[in-house]
Amino acid sequence: MKGLKLWIRAFFLIVFATLKMALPAQAPDRSPDAAFIREIYDQALSDGRCYPWLKDLCFEAGHRLSGSPGAEKAVQWAKAALDTLGLDSVWLQPVMVPHWVRGAAEQVQLTGSKKYGAFRLHALALGGSVGTGGKALSGEVVEVKTWEELDRLNERGIRGKIVFYNRPMDATKIRTFEAYGGAVDQRSSGASRAAKYGAVGVLVRSMSLRLDDFPHTGALRYDSAYTLIPAVAISTNDAEKLSALLREEGRATVSMQLDCQTLPDVLSYNVVGEIRGSEFPGRVILVGGHLDSWDVGHGAHDDGAGCTQSMDVLRIFRRLGYQPRHTIRCVLFMNEENGLRGGREYAREAGRKGEFHVCAIESDAGGFTPRGFGFDAAEGVINPFFEKVSGFAELLAPYGLALTRGGGGADIGPLKSQRGLLSGYAPDSQRYFDYHHAASDVFDAVNQRELELGAASMAALVYLLDKYGL
Amino acid sequence: MKGLKLWIRAFFLIVFATLKMALPAQAPDRSPDAAFIREIYDQALSDGRCYPWLKDLCFEAGHRLSGSPGAEKAVQWAKAALDTLGLDSVWLQPVMVPHWVRGAAEQVQLTGSKKYGAFRLHALALGGSVGTGGKALSGEVVEVKTWEELDRLNERGIRGKIVFYNRPMDATKIRTFEAYGGAVDQRSSGASRAAKYGAVGVLVRSMSLRLDDFPHTGALRYDSAYTLIPAVAISTNDAEKLSALLREEGRATVSMQLDCQTLPDVLSYNVVGEIRGSEFPGRVILVGGHLDSWDVGHGAHDDGAGCTQSMDVLRIFRRLGYQPRHTIRCVLFMNEENGLRGGREYAREAGRKGEFHVCAIESDAGGFTPRGFGFDAAEGVINPFFEKVSGFAELLAPYGLALTRGGGGADIGPLKSQRGLLSGYAPDSQRYFDYHHAASDVFDAVNQRELELGAASMAALVYLLDKYGL
Repeated sequence: MKGLKLWIRAFFLIVFATLKMALPAQAPDRSPDAAFIREIYDQALSDGRCYPWLKDLCFEAGHRLSGSPGAEKAVQWAKAALDTLGLDSVWLQPVMVPHWVRGAAEQVQLTGSKKYGAFRLHALALGGSVGTGGKALSGEVVEVKTWEELDRLNERGIRGKIVFYNRPMDATKIRTFEAYGGAVDQRSSGASRAAKYGAVGVLVRSMSLRLDDFPHTGALRYDSAYTLIPAVAISTNDAEKLSALLREEGRATVSMQLDCQTLPDVLSYNVVGEIRGSEFPGRVILVGGHLDSWDVGHGAHDDGAGCTQSMDVLRIFRRLGYQPRHTIRCVLFMNEENGLRGGREYAREAGRKGEFHVCAIESDAGGFTPRGFGFDAAEGVINPFFEKVSGFAELLAPYGLALTRGGGGADIGPLKSQRGLLSGYAPDSQRYFDYHHAASDVFDAVNQRELELGAASMAALVYLLDKYGL
Repeated sequence: MKGLKLWIRAFFLIVFATLKMALPAQAPDRSPDAAFIREIYDQALSDGRCYPWLKDLCFEAGHRLSGSPGAEKAVQWAKAALDTLGLDSVWLQPVMVPHWVRGAAEQVQLTGSKKYGAFRLHALALGGSVGTGGKALSGEVVEVKTWEELDRLNERGIRGKIVFYNRPMDATKIRTFEAYGGAVDQRSSGASRAAKYGAVGVLVRSMSLRLDDFPHTGALRYDSAYTLIPAVAISTNDAEKLSALLREEGRATVSMQLDCQTLPDVLSYNVVGEIRGSEFPGRVILVGGHLDSWDVGHGAHDDGAGCTQSMDVLRIFRRLGYQPRHTIRCVLFMNEENGLRGGREYAREAGRKGEFHVCAIESDAGGFTPRGFGFDAAEGVINPFFEKVSGFAELLAPYGLALTRGGGGADIGPLKSQRGLLSGYAPDSQRYFDYHHAASDVFDAVNQRELELGAASMAALVYLLDKYGL
């Protein structure tokens, strides 16, 4: 009977083990966390500062391309605003930044159309473009939608001409950043790839899903192996019009005069403020955005929103009297748009000081309604990190937040080698590219509640990371 | 040894049963559904019609309060648009509707303030309000935020005065409809509750979370036991100003002149179009919105969006050559705003014809980015119904859609007694009350992609309901 008893014992042990495997572990008591997160949202929605701050930034500094007077004003404004919060420290971190200037307004026009005569295109020089040397540059337009078409046309089809890149962003992508990713190579590398075949200039269809008259600028990268040729973005409406005209009339000629140039580097700053951690002062949880913008509109969504949300995270913690275990730091990076010098300098300096970034969260996708956070980290650590933050999902779901793999931000990218966690705040993306890098990116395009909900969402994630670590 | 063998057998049987209980059932092959839903979104986002339709509706019919020429134009426009789609039938369903008219613009002004002198308030008569009989009505203003305050003031504090309801929507609610629900009683029943104590008129703080100059109208309901007194909404900015003035100066007097009146009922129509079901023609899946609006702005979000999305659902199915098993019907209801006559008549007629509505889906929460669907049904059927649709969750999640309990729509409410499923399309709610019932609810406030994504989301749900039934 001893054998039978052992069998019975083994039987129950295995049944219990199987059941235990299959059932979820006892849930920890989340109610104090839920209550504190609720306080964060209450504070952000009833007494938030990011919206009035954004208004000040937009109207006092205005647009603020690296090296411009607007950028300098923004640095001083942001430091002064952080100085009012009673933080443990606020400082400016020096960094040399590129200084590209647009100069006089672009003159880009279609000439000699049978149907339209001459008409002016809504155009903006791409950031970093060379100018046309004080005179107009003229050429026949060749439209291409793919690199294969460009390569097929080759020298023979392209030499002396102006290449017109007209591949639209793919409207069927649900996440508009994917659509952007599938088209932006035209803007970033189109000039040099056309110059390789002897083109004299480049027109690029604006990176926008909307049909309207706003040209959208953005950085280009020249390949120094080829002649540097001028490049402009034209509005989506004008791209459609020009394409139709090429079909109808068989040919089109464009003249362009750009006054832009690159001047010597300028001293500028990342603006930093922090609440020192009581237990782990050398372990940092970072929230940030970039303070520079393009030189049109207000740079309200890109990225005034991310800056003022990050500032409000610190203010919310101070207002609620929360003493973090880790250092919580707000960093407003300079020069994300055309150089990333601020992000690189920040990571270098952090390395010199031996600071470890537990998590860096960037808000640089607009001030829209929250949808969640994306997470990234070095191979080997991302799996346990993501498993850890997935434990926060239930607490964040009531606020419409989903936690996903993949994400981050340009400015925090250089911190990846520290092997901490990186996170990109992910608001709804549907309207972002309507405003991105265009004169339409103004304060009025930002909704107060959507902006405030973003600040609260970031603060909620920071709170959980601070409490539970990684 | 036989006993032992039986034990061993029982042991394995129980271990397997335990494991089976604990593991999810084998997932059905969802790939054809996923592929078809992808086609629906592709069609809506690359070739959608709801946005140009909305533009036509807003600019050709304009605003369209029940009984107005705009409403009549909208009926004709919608029928003509549905007629182009090659549906199985399109018809007008007659219904008598109330006919309230605003008349000449409201004159509402604060008089005799020490600080401001006289100033005009941004005001709109509430829908259904009586007028002031061709002359101005004047009274001292009494501010209240709660019903308890009103009751405490009583006859003595209220007789001969104008009651000013100034309880704001609660900004800390994440779902703005909850904030609306917590404040709208002031608008709907404030007039009669003040008249009970002898008030001569009513000012109501607009139902909006935004501080701006737009007054937001909306229906009031008089209690016939008390005198019908005139009632207007004032803008949130003016409500703040008036409240501050009462604090600073101790008293305020307002004069109001309203020209509005209720005329005899008018013949109008629900507009209906359908694709007949091949297997269950008498079992209907309904998509709809309401065609009437208030008499300011364009009624673009409320509810031009829902109407044109519903129309686009039928177009998408026709365009993709989809033959439904159930009848798929688009209903544009008349008179949601101030009577619900269209919704009631529709349900009555459906009852007479013996039609069963498997599911009725209403889009009446604006043309914003999709967040999901809410579901409701009669007690006794909601649980199995919700369990069934929860099975669709995985297919809809890639499009940002969550399925939740609770929801529906005013127009489809009368169908609840059929004991089918009701669903409210739930877009993001953050911006809705910025525009709701105000002159700011214009075509330009609607984003094309957000609108199109809604149409696709509704079509995706209809497809799954049609394929799997309830």
